[in-house]
Amino acid sequence: MKFIASKTDLMNSIAIALRAVPAHTTMPILRCILIEGRGNSLKLTTNDSEFGIETYVTGTVEDPGTIAVDAKIFSEIIRRLPDEIVNFRSDESFNIEITCGKTKINIAGQSGEEFAALPNIEMDDCITISQFTLKNLITQTIFSIASNDNNKLMSGELFEIKGSILRMVALDGHRIAIRRVALKEDFGNHRVIIPGKTLSELARTLSGEMDEVAKIYLSKNYIIFDIPGTRLVSRLIDGEYFNVDQMISSDYETKITINRQELQGCLDRAAIFFRENDKKPIVLDLRSGELELSLDTPQGSFNEKLDVEKQGPDMVIGLNPKFMSDALKVIEEESVGLYMINSKAPCFIRNEDETYVYLILPVNFVR
Amino acid sequence: MKFIASKTDLMNSIAIALRAVPAHTTMPILRCILIEGRGNSLKLTTNDSEFGIETYVTGTVEDPGTIAVDAKIFSEIIRRLPDEIVNFRSDESFNIEITCGKTKINIAGQSGEEFAALPNIEMDDCITISQFTLKNLITQTIFSIASNDNNKLMSGELFEIKGSILRMVALDGHRIAIRRVALKEDFGNHRVIIPGKTLSELARTLSGEMDEVAKIYLSKNYIIFDIPGTRLVSRLIDGEYFNVDQMISSDYETKITINRQELQGCLDRAAIFFRENDKKPIVLDLRSGELELSLDTPQGSFNEKLDVEKQGPDMVIGLNPKFMSDALKVIEEESVGLYMINSKAPCFIRNEDETYVYLILPVNFVR
Repeated sequence: MKFIASKTDLMNSIAIALRAVPAHTTMPILRCILIEGRGNSLKLTTNDSEFGIETYVTGTVEDPGTIAVDAKIFSEIIRRLPDEIVNFRSDESFNIEITCGKTKINIAGQSGEEFAALPNIEMDDCITISQFTLKNLITQTIFSIASNDNNKLMSGELFEIKGSILRMVALDGHRIAIRRVALKEDFGNHRVIIPGKTLSELARTLSGEMDEVAKIYLSKNYIIFDIPGTRLVSRLIDGEYFNVDQMISSDYETKITINRQELQGCLDRAAIFFRENDKKPIVLDLRSGELELSLDTPQGSFNEKLDVEKQGPDMVIGLNPKFMSDALKVIEEESVGLYMINSKAPCFIRNEDETYVYLILPVNFVR
Repeated sequence: MKFIASKTDLMNSIAIALRAVPAHTTMPILRCILIEGRGNSLKLTTNDSEFGIETYVTGTVEDPGTIAVDAKIFSEIIRRLPDEIVNFRSDESFNIEITCGKTKINIAGQSGEEFAALPNIEMDDCITISQFTLKNLITQTIFSIASNDNNKLMSGELFEIKGSILRMVALDGHRIAIRRVALKEDFGNHRVIIPGKTLSELARTLSGEMDEVAKIYLSKNYIIFDIPGTRLVSRLIDGEYFNVDQMISSDYETKITINRQELQGCLDRAAIFFRENDKKPIVLDLRSGELELSLDTPQGSFNEKLDVEKQGPDMVIGLNPKFMSDALKVIEEESVGLYMINSKAPCFIRNEDETYVYLILPVNFVR
């Protein structure tokens, strides 16, 4: 194979392809990027077995062909080349010669035959969504997926379409994050579970531009995210997701409205004394127009009072300050609403029209 | 004790004091900052046993006293406080209460009695130097000290004053870095060895401003660096430093002049294939107006040609590309001179008046 491409174009595509190169694998070939040169473009493919990436580089293919090359070494080489045209050439024995300016580098590639191709999926019906929206939906929920794999369903997110409403849900047994958005069209009904790793790598790949579109294709076992120049193909998680609607409720006894940044600063300070294993929550003690937050531990104690707007009766509840802080970080509004029923029932952080809902289970505490 | 200080002032001083808090220690008290409130200022002291820091915070001391407080926790607390006035108060049982805005935090301190005080050194004759110059001298040599403690002398730098000339030298058995600078006065003759850790923390503390001065005091076993608001006291390394003048020489057979950034880029690329343990050097093959650099390893091979200005006979020499790159990074000139005698003798990177000299021992290679 022989091709010519600009260093910058090549590097940008390699950076995307690297996202599906597994850190650890029992199949050494998956540490490679598969390079296929045909027509006037180069296709780079990587496959971490849970999801794979195909990305295209514009270039001149002088001699078409296919070769696999160690992803890390290839990326290191291209990254350090001078900012000029890169000439790539490989022979039948998979010897690769890369020249660029006055630099010449030789490395060994390998046959691409053993490379696990990405599944071939029919791409008929497609769901379209702005990259900006999709990226936001992911970053605003993904922190709530479980950090371990004990429950496979909790390691992914529910991706649910009902007509023109898209909802993404993440939960880990102690909290739930839900974001809802209206799409431009009716795309029918879909309900799939996407692995967390796929979503976090997808979020990094999405441009975050409002007017750039991502196309989504679904099959029984796979989902494809198609953005200009790049396609991400992921397995879906098999199983029936939790009945989230049963867990959430719009009923409440007490509602408080509070400045988001003030609350966030207060939780950050309290977190100095918070230990995940201690199960010592921050206690929110709500009386008339004042919210007193306190955390009492052997390491030290924290106390702060915040002004709030309150509706309903007084309330005392213990919460994990990190969970509250995680949710507050991804809310954009200046003030947020906390909805509570009693000290044993979940606390909800949500807005009026429920485009976001963060549920946090309370933690028992002794006074 | 009782004092009031601004959060920002307090935080800035804590950040400096933290540099002398040991990461590991068998003396738990050294994990603390010693806080002494007297007059209208607060003194923070830390001591990692090799060197210690005293730094002052302007504030109002309402009730003088001394207390020790865990450095990490104290720093975390102050950092996260709102940007307001901090009230600090401790009682006879060393209970500390910190209030700031609506925040109230209680932690336990401890008696400062066991804290290892910094040595009391007579501060008579002082050497003055601009902080900018001292900082540069350190960062331009310190990378050449040995990375392990096998030879205590190599873990520090020679700090040598002869009249008005200051010279700092670092070496690790494979390379030497020397920087020389003219001071504004004659400060007599001094020759001490300063621990590398002291110097790297000092470099971080120095402001890098040309018109801000550092005062240096020397005793038999200690050196003090006194900069406005902060004093760093360090042990010296005991022993006779290497006779560096015997190792360096201005004689050469071949001199090349080369663009520094081009050479740097080339070495970065070659470094992809360089393995410290392989002992496979980059080979510099110098013929007429061209320098060919090549590195041939089982992982791949690298070759690049650079235009150079050459004086003297052709030359082939093998060098560690990382050592060359380390030196080039801290040279400011656009073009640098490489001086060589033969492939078995050291290569020198230096300027005409030898305000910097980097010696790199050659590495054997087979062609």
